[in-house]
Amino acid sequence: MPRFKLTIEYDGSGFVGWQRQANGLSVQEAIETAAAPLGCLPGGIHGAGRTDSGVHATGQVAHLDLAKPYRTDSVRDAINAALRPHRVAIRAAEAAAADFDARHSAVRRRYLYRILNRRAPLALDAGQRWLVKPALDAEAMHEAAQGLLGLHDFTTFRDSECQAASPVRTLDGFAVARDGDAIEIRVWARSFLHRQVRSLVGSLVSVGLGRWSAGDLRAALDARDRRRCGPVAPADGLYLTHIDYP
Amino acid sequence: MPRFKLTIEYDGSGFVGWQRQANGLSVQEAIETAAAPLGCLPGGIHGAGRTDSGVHATGQVAHLDLAKPYRTDSVRDAINAALRPHRVAIRAAEAAAADFDARHSAVRRRYLYRILNRRAPLALDAGQRWLVKPALDAEAMHEAAQGLLGLHDFTTFRDSECQAASPVRTLDGFAVARDGDAIEIRVWARSFLHRQVRSLVGSLVSVGLGRWSAGDLRAALDARDRRRCGPVAPADGLYLTHIDYP
Repeated sequence: MPRFKLTIEYDGSGFVGWQRQANGLSVQEAIETAAAPLGCLPGGIHGAGRTDSGVHATGQVAHLDLAKPYRTDSVRDAINAALRPHRVAIRAAEAAAADFDARHSAVRRRYLYRILNRRAPLALDAGQRWLVKPALDAEAMHEAAQGLLGLHDFTTFRDSECQAASPVRTLDGFAVARDGDAIEIRVWARSFLHRQVRSLVGSLVSVGLGRWSAGDLRAALDARDRRRCGPVAPADGLYLTHIDYP
Repeated sequence: MPRFKLTIEYDGSGFVGWQRQANGLSVQEAIETAAAPLGCLPGGIHGAGRTDSGVHATGQVAHLDLAKPYRTDSVRDAINAALRPHRVAIRAAEAAAADFDARHSAVRRRYLYRILNRRAPLALDAGQRWLVKPALDAEAMHEAAQGLLGLHDFTTFRDSECQAASPVRTLDGFAVARDGDAIEIRVWARSFLHRQVRSLVGSLVSVGLGRWSAGDLRAALDARDRRRCGPVAPADGLYLTHIDYP
């Protein structure tokens, strides 16, 4: 059973999330069904990041085992043909070592959060940005974000239903940049807690609105109390963009 | 009847085009209906560019006359509220002089054409890019485009149903740039013929594929013969981005 690595793009709005669930179609199930003719078994797709319902990806990574050592371009094209009309695309398929594990081999996950900061509603980017109408101070957001870098107990910024054994994570980078009406927030770490990025972004927006100071954000972190988190940012603006491997 | 200038964004895929037509909803009609409570009359919205069905805009401009000198933010917000759920947004409303005419006062129109150049289908950008699977030589496209700048008879590159009195136009700029899988083509001129941008882009892609040389493109222009045009690029990738006024 040769192993393959897939790099995957999807519009999360039509799915219950990455992970297979009883209440609707997951990205994982859509790909498994499309890859079944190549020998992929049910439960045979293993992703690097478990994106929530509505969260998008431009660079999700998964591994799967297939019946034969197919040409990688054929794997990509066959799965893509079978995926239509779902808004999921295999950007690349590569041969992988037998011990490659998309989730456990990953050394860094990178997310992008897109905000549109204007009064007018979304037309072209509906479902793909978070529309924040009041003016945001992106520089203040960037400054405050730097205070969260490094190893911390992120209890404040994880979902109450997060099942990770430890709330301790190391945030490697957190950058906020404005380009006209668009604000792009990039965050990267070895791994994240459940809803950690959306919790962090929502709290940063409280800083951008002037409701919180950088000190308030840091105090929320130090409190290790979920009730101290700002409003959680919506899924629409979040993109899993890249998974790094050694 | 005070005059206002609107800057408009829309996803063209849900419309028959900018211009009011019998066979479906136009962007013009959607805005007219939304602006009627403010005193806009049927036929009262005048746009700078008549985008075709499926063509998008981030910076279309139109003028209209309203019953009262409303606050500009109120005009923007009231029309936007009434436009839902259409994928059209008034980005800005401004007070305009009584002789301002969105179409006739315009001195330059700017378009962007977006190509995604990869084997995998579109997932996130479905309907918003032209997917071209074979590798394109963007540098060759840019070089060839420069040969079309200036004043020419663009008969080859206008739709056979174009109703402009003259096929002569002056192309002020035509730039092709690649960023990874994305190729962005920007083109600007005082005015364009019907389907001129899509005809030019389609022909440039013939250059990018190596089917045409820059000389072939120039020969097609000089032939002044519609049958010499390359395949017309689809509407999905085209955006009216900006209208310049003196």
